[in-house]
Amino acid sequence: MKGKLIELESFQIIDSLVDLSKYSSEEAEVVRRIIHATGDVEYAELVRFSHNAIDLVKDAIKKRWSVVCDVEMVKAGITERLAAEFGLELKSFINDKRVLELARKKGLTRAETSIEFANGLYDGIIFVIGNAPTALLKVIDLYKQNQLKNSVVIAFPVGFVKAAFSKEQLLKTNIPYITNVGQKGGSAVAAAAFRAVAKLL
Amino acid sequence: MKGKLIELESFQIIDSLVDLSKYSSEEAEVVRRIIHATGDVEYAELVRFSHNAIDLVKDAIKKRWSVVCDVEMVKAGITERLAAEFGLELKSFINDKRVLELARKKGLTRAETSIEFANGLYDGIIFVIGNAPTALLKVIDLYKQNQLKNSVVIAFPVGFVKAAFSKEQLLKTNIPYITNVGQKGGSAVAAAAFRAVAKLL
Repeated sequence: MKGKLIELESFQIIDSLVDLSKYSSEEAEVVRRIIHATGDVEYAELVRFSHNAIDLVKDAIKKRWSVVCDVEMVKAGITERLAAEFGLELKSFINDKRVLELARKKGLTRAETSIEFANGLYDGIIFVIGNAPTALLKVIDLYKQNQLKNSVVIAFPVGFVKAAFSKEQLLKTNIPYITNVGQKGGSAVAAAAFRAVAKLL
Repeated sequence: MKGKLIELESFQIIDSLVDLSKYSSEEAEVVRRIIHATGDVEYAELVRFSHNAIDLVKDAIKKRWSVVCDVEMVKAGITERLAAEFGLELKSFINDKRVLELARKKGLTRAETSIEFANGLYDGIIFVIGNAPTALLKVIDLYKQNQLKNSVVIAFPVGFVKAAFSKEQLLKTNIPYITNVGQKGGSAVAAAAFRAVAKLL
């Protein structure tokens, strides 16, 4: 209860600090929760939504598409508790032995290998990427090869090598996305974005 | 292997973007890993270490003090794999039923209640706080009441309500700390800071 009041006060302060008027009210809620999770008001300028992305992610949640996270920390941030509310299964294959072996064999990152692996398992995937640019580049690569299953992508890979590039490439596709421009991002951001959309349901 | 090379390249880019010369070389490594985890170069100006903090956290790890995280996401970010390397147990009591009941009874947040609960269980605690200002304020409160067990604190609570304040208060104590100034922070930052120190061992 006290925690809930602090959250509300926090959202009011965020609204006094940034201008979210360029976003729809539902988009603004996603951006607000990202700022809440990072303390970083710059996200008000950085977050990007493809057309109708929030409705498409909501639909994917309602259809109980598989939620595939690039790292365990994204899963932990979404929380099993929230996932259970919507009957969702949170998956991450980054530590799966089959993925480790495939990655070693092919000389690829575990992250990109785990994405390809998940795409082979499911049809209907909510990718939530909070760490590895190579994971997002693999999603885009599968899309370009017409091999990507029905998917929506919440993508906030972070860092100075290919993170900004991978997100720029995503903006050029027709994959439904929630993402950001630039090198910022991370698992807390990706998890916050997913949770924000779920809470709109 | 490919992931490792990307990490190295990323660190080189970070060093070209920010000046870490005001930090010791070990402190700089912690800041570098925080920037790596967030993509946010501003941390080069924000991170603070108490005197000799890194050696004290290293000692605490070597003594296998209990690692108490305010939220599950910090645990996931540290990873059980890294913890196992050092024989550490990662704990979080935020979802513990006894804590939920105590918090409800006292009208306190689960976060602050979980800290008090952990302080009652252990002597020798590495607190890793990535979310709740109330958790850090509870650590400080216990310290002021001479009730805090032997502890070191890695504290990056985030947000616009009391996060900056709680960290300012921490700077005024004699608790060994790694923290930052301002509203920024989060579980990815706290986990990155802990991992960075462990990797110095």
